[in-house]
Amino acid sequence: MILLPFYVDDIIKTALSEDINYIDSTADLLIPDNSYSDAYLMAKADGVVCGSEVAARVFTILDPSIDVRFLVNEGERVSKGQKIASINGHTREMLKAERTALNIIQHMSGIATYTRKCVDAVEGTRATIADTRKTLPGLRALQKYAVTVGGGRNHRYNLTDAAMLKDNHIDAYGGITAAVKTLRKRAGHMLQIEVETRNLDEVKEALSCGVNVIMLDNMSLDEMTEACRLVDGKAKTEASGNITLDNIRAVAETGVDIISLGALTHSVQAFDISMKWG
Amino acid sequence: MILLPFYVDDIIKTALSEDINYIDSTADLLIPDNSYSDAYLMAKADGVVCGSEVAARVFTILDPSIDVRFLVNEGERVSKGQKIASINGHTREMLKAERTALNIIQHMSGIATYTRKCVDAVEGTRATIADTRKTLPGLRALQKYAVTVGGGRNHRYNLTDAAMLKDNHIDAYGGITAAVKTLRKRAGHMLQIEVETRNLDEVKEALSCGVNVIMLDNMSLDEMTEACRLVDGKAKTEASGNITLDNIRAVAETGVDIISLGALTHSVQAFDISMKWG
Amino acid sequence: MILLPFYVDDIIKTALSEDINYIDSTADLLIPDNSYSDAYLMAKADGVVCGSEVAARVFTILDPSIDVRFLVNEGERVSKGQKIASINGHTREMLKAERTALNIIQHMSGIATYTRKCVDAVEGTRATIADTRKTLPGLRALQKYAVTVGGGRNHRYNLTDAAMLKDNHIDAYGGITAAVKTLRKRAGHMLQIEVETRNLDEVKEALSCGVNVIMLDNMSLDEMTEACRLVDGKAKTEASGNITLDNIRAVAETGVDIISLGALTHSVQAFDISMKWG
Amino acid sequence: MILLPFYVDDIIKTALSEDINYIDSTADLLIPDNSYSDAYLMAKADGVVCGSEVAARVFTILDPSIDVRFLVNEGERVSKGQKIASINGHTREMLKAERTALNIIQHMSGIATYTRKCVDAVEGTRATIADTRKTLPGLRALQKYAVTVGGGRNHRYNLTDAAMLKDNHIDAYGGITAAVKTLRKRAGHMLQIEVETRNLDEVKEALSCGVNVIMLDNMSLDEMTEACRLVDGKAKTEASGNITLDNIRAVAETGVDIISLGALTHSVQAFDISMKWG
Amino acid sequence: MILLPFYVDDIIKTALSEDINYIDSTADLLIPDNSYSDAYLMAKADGVVCGSEVAARVFTILDPSIDVRFLVNEGERVSKGQKIASINGHTREMLKAERTALNIIQHMSGIATYTRKCVDAVEGTRATIADTRKTLPGLRALQKYAVTVGGGRNHRYNLTDAAMLKDNHIDAYGGITAAVKTLRKRAGHMLQIEVETRNLDEVKEALSCGVNVIMLDNMSLDEMTEACRLVDGKAKTEASGNITLDNIRAVAETGVDIISLGALTHSVQAFDISMKWG
Amino acid sequence: MILLPFYVDDIIKTALSEDINYIDSTADLLIPDNSYSDAYLMAKADGVVCGSEVAARVFTILDPSIDVRFLVNEGERVSKGQKIASINGHTREMLKAERTALNIIQHMSGIATYTRKCVDAVEGTRATIADTRKTLPGLRALQKYAVTVGGGRNHRYNLTDAAMLKDNHIDAYGGITAAVKTLRKRAGHMLQIEVETRNLDEVKEALSCGVNVIMLDNMSLDEMTEACRLVDGKAKTEASGNITLDNIRAVAETGVDIISLGALTHSVQAFDISMKWG
Repeated sequence: MILLPFYVDDIIKTALSEDINYIDSTADLLIPDNSYSDAYLMAKADGVVCGSEVAARVFTILDPSIDVRFLVNEGERVSKGQKIASINGHTREMLKAERTALNIIQHMSGIATYTRKCVDAVEGTRATIADTRKTLPGLRALQKYAVTVGGGRNHRYNLTDAAMLKDNHIDAYGGITAAVKTLRKRAGHMLQIEVETRNLDEVKEALSCGVNVIMLDNMSLDEMTEACRLVDGKAKTEASGNITLDNIRAVAETGVDIISLGALTHSVQAFDISMKWG
Repeated sequence: MILLPFYVDDIIKTALSEDINYIDSTADLLIPDNSYSDAYLMAKADGVVCGSEVAARVFTILDPSIDVRFLVNEGERVSKGQKIASINGHTREMLKAERTALNIIQHMSGIATYTRKCVDAVEGTRATIADTRKTLPGLRALQKYAVTVGGGRNHRYNLTDAAMLKDNHIDAYGGITAAVKTLRKRAGHMLQIEVETRNLDEVKEALSCGVNVIMLDNMSLDEMTEACRLVDGKAKTEASGNITLDNIRAVAETGVDIISLGALTHSVQAFDISMKWG
Repeated sequence: MILLPFYVDDIIKTALSEDINYIDSTADLLIPDNSYSDAYLMAKADGVVCGSEVAARVFTILDPSIDVRFLVNEGERVSKGQKIASINGHTREMLKAERTALNIIQHMSGIATYTRKCVDAVEGTRATIADTRKTLPGLRALQKYAVTVGGGRNHRYNLTDAAMLKDNHIDAYGGITAAVKTLRKRAGHMLQIEVETRNLDEVKEALSCGVNVIMLDNMSLDEMTEACRLVDGKAKTEASGNITLDNIRAVAETGVDIISLGALTHSVQAFDISMKWG
Repeated sequence: MILLPFYVDDIIKTALSEDINYIDSTADLLIPDNSYSDAYLMAKADGVVCGSEVAARVFTILDPSIDVRFLVNEGERVSKGQKIASINGHTREMLKAERTALNIIQHMSGIATYTRKCVDAVEGTRATIADTRKTLPGLRALQKYAVTVGGGRNHRYNLTDAAMLKDNHIDAYGGITAAVKTLRKRAGHMLQIEVETRNLDEVKEALSCGVNVIMLDNMSLDEMTEACRLVDGKAKTEASGNITLDNIRAVAETGVDIISLGALTHSVQAFDISMKWG
Repeated sequence: MILLPFYVDDIIKTALSEDINYIDSTADLLIPDNSYSDAYLMAKADGVVCGSEVAARVFTILDPSIDVRFLVNEGERVSKGQKIASINGHTREMLKAERTALNIIQHMSGIATYTRKCVDAVEGTRATIADTRKTLPGLRALQKYAVTVGGGRNHRYNLTDAAMLKDNHIDAYGGITAAVKTLRKRAGHMLQIEVETRNLDEVKEALSCGVNVIMLDNMSLDEMTEACRLVDGKAKTEASGNITLDNIRAVAETGVDIISLGALTHSVQAFDISMKWG
Repeated sequence: MILLPFYVDDIIKTALSEDINYIDSTADLLIPDNSYSDAYLMAKADGVVCGSEVAARVFTILDPSIDVRFLVNEGERVSKGQKIASINGHTREMLKAERTALNIIQHMSGIATYTRKCVDAVEGTRATIADTRKTLPGLRALQKYAVTVGGGRNHRYNLTDAAMLKDNHIDAYGGITAAVKTLRKRAGHMLQIEVETRNLDEVKEALSCGVNVIMLDNMSLDEMTEACRLVDGKAKTEASGNITLDNIRAVAETGVDIISLGALTHSVQAFDISMKWG
């Protein structure tokens, strides 16, 4: 697993604790110890599966003897009605883990599925699809991972690992040039600097400072095309703001290197998966 | 605050730690200690505000001297462009808290806004809108709270606090009647029992067992109407499955007591709020 | 195990950390790595065993190679001098785990043993024995579980999962009727409501509101008998207050459905179990 | 506060989380924000108050604006019906904190009250009353502190801070003399050594090794008297095993320095305190 | 404070818990509640003060009424015998916090002092001094912060926020060129890439791939000079390996941009500070 | 393992989380799942190995299938260039764990190596080498354990488990005699008392009170010799203050029982160990 196993386990334990405060007042009172079942996870729509190993661990954390086998690879496309995984073991513990496992895999697969749609939409252009810091509390690593499973790339992970100058940083420093110069002086040598620009003059100024990435914030398609022409490979260009599946192809065709979308992680549509009991 | 303050603070600290691994490589390197700013939160769409106190604590946990004043009440409707809160204090710490505060308030307000739309859609009927256990890991209390702020009601909070018999519980017990009887015998006296039914025969059987709530799972409008007629107030009826804003009014008019929607919490559309610097 | 395994493990790790701050200054300094022992747990009184799996995990968390076998089932009655479990493995780690394992199993078995006595005392009546929220910090789930192992039932688990109207709630709301009506309107459909009553007039009022459970608080046997006659199965009746093994049978014979005792969990007499080295 | 404030707060937060999973389904739904109340804590028996500051923090952690004033000092004796503390603030939060605060102060006062009875019973002899490691999981510091408030002394806090040789340690080392010698060689210079003895021969051997404390384990009164005569102040003597309020005076009169009782902490009778609303 | 306040507080609570398992068996038994003292922190050598706010919080976490005033700024040079801070409050709590506060400030000041010596040694050259990932468990942020207070710069914070190709990465990929190409393709646009080189051929290959930073690993001064000439500003150059205060100036004069030293954080000499009681 | 396994695992998880915030941006992007490697740990200087089991767990926590075999025993002396352990498994996870494992074993071995030098330096005298409470936050148990592996002894572990009277305790109590008398009265019977003395008069007073240990604080060699003569085995004597490898033999020859050094844990020189890939 790419994700740290104990980080994933902590999320799962928190989620299970939310769902089972003490006992399962249905299964624990009704189902005997020695009842065993077969079940499987089934896609209820077309999409991309993500979080298979996380979902499997939900069952095994509750009961290490449950056997979970995924029938598709992480990141694989599945069709409505397709079996994703088979699960076998104690009926009682499978019932107790079911909802928590589904909640997680549906969220992660929802992110991967939508990201994949965006990636497919820009195929053939130079643009890559990137996420943002607009994530849900406690779930950033899970969400950023799901973006990569869907074919996207991760933007900076947090405020620490790269600098991004926004208008108020810039205003507080008397302009882009002064701010970038100060940052370069104070920062370690591994720090990338991105500058948010709102017009072509700012693009030019950012370019002249030698920044690594220039964000084109809420620009028109024409402005973006011109900005890319100006930058001409001397920095990376990133389109951001009001981008949807409807206009993403057009944005990509302006020549930008990166298209970032907050919606990948802040407005996730769960991918519908159900657990069928055999 | 209705929510436990230390539960909320733990979520905030986790979210801030995700966003600030060590320092803010932009603000901490550029903005001096003695810089102060005014800013405000502004709605970028029409909706319902939720999570105001949570968002305020993001700022004060990072810096207790920041002053956050909400200009609207929790649960109040706001219009696009309306100011929601004013924030005043150290520029640097305001910048560091901004994204985390927005991520939380946008998610909670997104839930409240969508719930409110559902509640409004069934106005005048007997139906109340309820959530489910389809929540995101670690966020159940925040999400369930947001549903109530939007005018909805909470279904059971977890597997412990009420029993719900689904088909596999029932199959494992030789039918509804046997399962309910066993549950009543083994459970404490405070336990509510709900039974999931798929047809009118099951509705009748559940009713004859004296269960508290009968879920009408994926039934047609006609079936639901007939089920409500059969039940006739002797139990609560709950409609569930494939309910959207498009058909929710029709469902409510069948006479059901509760309409529950997983989408309230598993597929949240963030409510767009931005932080404007004065 | 009915209890969540990681919840149990967290309690065990906390307890072991309290008992072994750093090293065991006796066993770690004296006993060599390659010393192995056999030991067993022995009941030093008649009672009911509870917490066997929890106690076993104390040993295996410290040393996964220790083999613990319980010779009696969870909830089984044992006699003074009876062997409960055999333990085999590294002497040093067995010595280090001994006190922590005994502290837990003695507490849990103490609860189960006393509960069993209460249950036996009311045998043949309609009354069930229930616990309360009068539990020790951090131990509620362990304690509530032990009550069920002793044959009791769990009252509400916490303030969230059911409503109980006490006198000050009622006073703040202008009487039982108004309070119940408001609660019903605001609560989700899964919420049970219990009302605490101090006299027959209150019993009648509660009954007329259709509450789920009526608590008869510190009433005389005659009042309780009359209350049960009035209620006549239209709600559950719960006797509470000053109930001991001496008067519990008489209380049960008034016809109440539930007898709840705080002492089950707030004043636990440890059940004496010792670890004998073979 | 003698106890570490954050340790105490962690226990309180755990206990509050056990009691309020999400909301208080009675108070949060019924009591308005702007309702204020006066209440007080009242002793329902004669005893010793312990845990006042801990109980006060339960209220202020939930709501810092609640005012809690203790009317008696920590460790003071109170009579049945005596007011212990006055509490003033938001009705809703006072209701939510009530049970948790009472559970803690009743447990701690129960320990202090029983310890005080033991201390009083041996007054005038040289004996001091001591606790043991027979504590409840997660509560050792609270319990050991309560013993001191009741006039007792703390035995070793854990396996780390002192050595105690029991029979199996001794058997594994070919006798007391060999074991003590090895321990002295391997241990740091701050380590006290106690030896458990079962007869006068063992007392003599332990004495000849220069141990710090000699435990007289389950000896008769005559044996203990003789043991104390033999030891004659050259080590501390500790009586242990089957000591109750009935025989504690007689044990003390044998001349032992310390009487240790597991029951101080493993079988606590809660001291009854109620919260009265003004 | 640049560091997250709750991160710092968690470290302090852990450290206090290590030092005060339950009570302070000296101060808590001897010093009365109402004893107050004045004390100050005094440098016992020349150096740079770091961790002042962290040390102050040790006292206030234990007792919010203690007043701590630092007489020098964070990062200021102090001389042997100079007063650093004055502390005033309850004697007992000041005694209990003393060792923990000193342990932290001595470690952080030790790092800042040594870093400052390195920075001073290369003054006038283009070289900056950088730390590494060779930090102590749980202390990375404290240590990296201390490096910056001493005038150094932070290298990458962790394995996530920048890529560094070492020989085994390279071997596994058929050379630098192939590895860099693959990394560029798979990584997000904010990722810096550094390559570790051991000879001038590798420097040339790294340079031709357009990496951001070239590490000159354990090269001779002549090799480094030649490498810097080759690179000629087209990438950053970083000297690493066997650099001490004795040879650091010579290394800097080869023209490298960065000199990184593991010893800044893995072999810290505590800066001696004592607490004097007035 | 002498150390509690879950305590060790918590330190490891914290350290891994510091080093891998989300993914390893080098190894996770480059190295395929099915790549396996052999590597070994090699000493780069002469010294004592400590922390072998801790280091092994770093690898297995990340990937339980990695096989780590130590070729030397814990505490064994190794020579420069000697292989310490062989490691075999997934290349990717071995790369991710490498730095964290090395950071820990280098720190622990550094402590053990330096302690061993001190122990060797006093060989043949009666003196043992002891640590102090001058440890790094969160690492006390690891550090104190490493001291014992190097042949040293542990002083008190914390403020709880033994009393040490320093000058300000004494001043607050009107002298050593009064303070010791009060302590003896209030403390439990397992508490050792040490008194810090600065001259021979204080040594005499401490001796007359029957304290367990007398610390000779910053005394000259002559004073220490005289103090040991005065004490003459009636208490333990401990030399402390300004002791280095240069003068430790001379101090030992004064006849003191214990020599304690803060530098063992507060100024650790990492023992250089590298991981070589086969």
